[in-house]
Amino acid sequence: MPRRSAPQYELFYWPGLQGRGEFVRLAFEAAGVPYVDVGRLPAARGGGAGAVARLLEEPGPWLTPLGPPALRYGKVLVAQTAAILQWVAPRLGVVPRDEASRLRAHQIQLTIADLVAEVHDTHHPIAVSLYYEDQKQEAARRAGEFVRERIPMFLGYLDGALDSNPAGRGRWLVGRGMSYVDLSTFQVVAGLRYAFPRAMARRERAVPRLGALHDRVAALPRIAAYLASERRIPFNESGIFRHYPELDLAAPRRRRGP
Amino acid sequence: MPRRSAPQYELFYWPGLQGRGEFVRLAFEAAGVPYVDVGRLPAARGGGAGAVARLLEEPGPWLTPLGPPALRYGKVLVAQTAAILQWVAPRLGVVPRDEASRLRAHQIQLTIADLVAEVHDTHHPIAVSLYYEDQKQEAARRAGEFVRERIPMFLGYLDGALDSNPAGRGRWLVGRGMSYVDLSTFQVVAGLRYAFPRAMARRERAVPRLGALHDRVAALPRIAAYLASERRIPFNESGIFRHYPELDLAAPRRRRGP
Repeated sequence: MPRRSAPQYELFYWPGLQGRGEFVRLAFEAAGVPYVDVGRLPAARGGGAGAVARLLEEPGPWLTPLGPPALRYGKVLVAQTAAILQWVAPRLGVVPRDEASRLRAHQIQLTIADLVAEVHDTHHPIAVSLYYEDQKQEAARRAGEFVRERIPMFLGYLDGALDSNPAGRGRWLVGRGMSYVDLSTFQVVAGLRYAFPRAMARRERAVPRLGALHDRVAALPRIAAYLASERRIPFNESGIFRHYPELDLAAPRRRRGP
Repeated sequence: MPRRSAPQYELFYWPGLQGRGEFVRLAFEAAGVPYVDVGRLPAARGGGAGAVARLLEEPGPWLTPLGPPALRYGKVLVAQTAAILQWVAPRLGVVPRDEASRLRAHQIQLTIADLVAEVHDTHHPIAVSLYYEDQKQEAARRAGEFVRERIPMFLGYLDGALDSNPAGRGRWLVGRGMSYVDLSTFQVVAGLRYAFPRAMARRERAVPRLGALHDRVAALPRIAAYLASERRIPFNESGIFRHYPELDLAAPRRRRGP
């Protein structure tokens, strides 16, 4: 009887943008574990946006995700970026094995997910179904508040998280070495720099350890090779981190607030 | 030597509103397991908003949460609503024990968390730090899109999730019986009805099983007792689900979209 081959890891995400799929890609790339990026395969090989859409539309033997990314491995399908990473990271060796570290990593990742949702809403504050051009006025107002209040808050949280991990000596967020949370932090620092270069140049001064973490991750041999490859989709204005210069301004003064 | 008493479960959440803390409360109430609602204790007994604020401000031997809710149990502190529920549900017996069920539950809960964040942004589309009155115009526009597109999408997801759980026979979302995900679904159905009564009356017709699930949860003896008690804070306009009649309108027509 022929031996059944081991399942492959299949990432389902829209082609053409980094999006939330990038957090999953970085974990595989850092681990050096092969994965199929289904959305970027040709349709003739079962890939493309159509394959991603089918996963979301056709009932399967699993919970149908509301949206990508989703990771399939044999009979397992996991959606929701933070849940995917929580599930796959121990299998990839990009999180310490003990329960306390995994719980810590997941909480940080969920907070990064909150940040990512807010970044998205800086250019889509009214509706994801409308063009940016149809919500530019609201976007300018929301982005101003985001730059003024939320970027410092989230960066401060991540910087503070370094302090609560003595084993990482200010260099890593969970345990003694690199984990998927460091990869995700690299991605949000890179993304915020792309989207809000002026604001970040100012805001990053207060949290130099995050810039150092970004550089440390970018220099990991597998990540450096990935970033230089065609597998790394450049940041662009289809993704979550978009550079609209008009949103990268000094924050408007608040009129009044609680 | 005196035996050291077992730790208590301590929920940290702002007093005066249900908020995200309510999802955690419902799990404890359904399980009949005692917990201390720290924010609602008098300050003289170590409670109140000050105790919640101190947890967020003072570095402890744990990862400082960016915001509440947080659950403390001995040396463990868990923040992020979905992570709290994932951690505590097996201990409370409100999720099946097998890994597949727990993974399924967590994915649904994370999608509910996305819904909750969007509900919040219907009345705060620009900034959490501004009053509703200072973002009413944007709120009307965002709420219109939310009612028209997002409520049907999220309700459709939850309704479809019933189909992908044959063991639940259309009655429960995970496994054969009630889990914390059913409690959270009860809460979002109740909350959406409170915030958007006109819209929900119309939208719920397409998903009658969710209304039945709401009623089934509300009739669980421990939940019925909880809802009738003073421990259940009424919905109000400090919470996530707010009833502003001007936001509960027929959706505006979309101008154009992708």
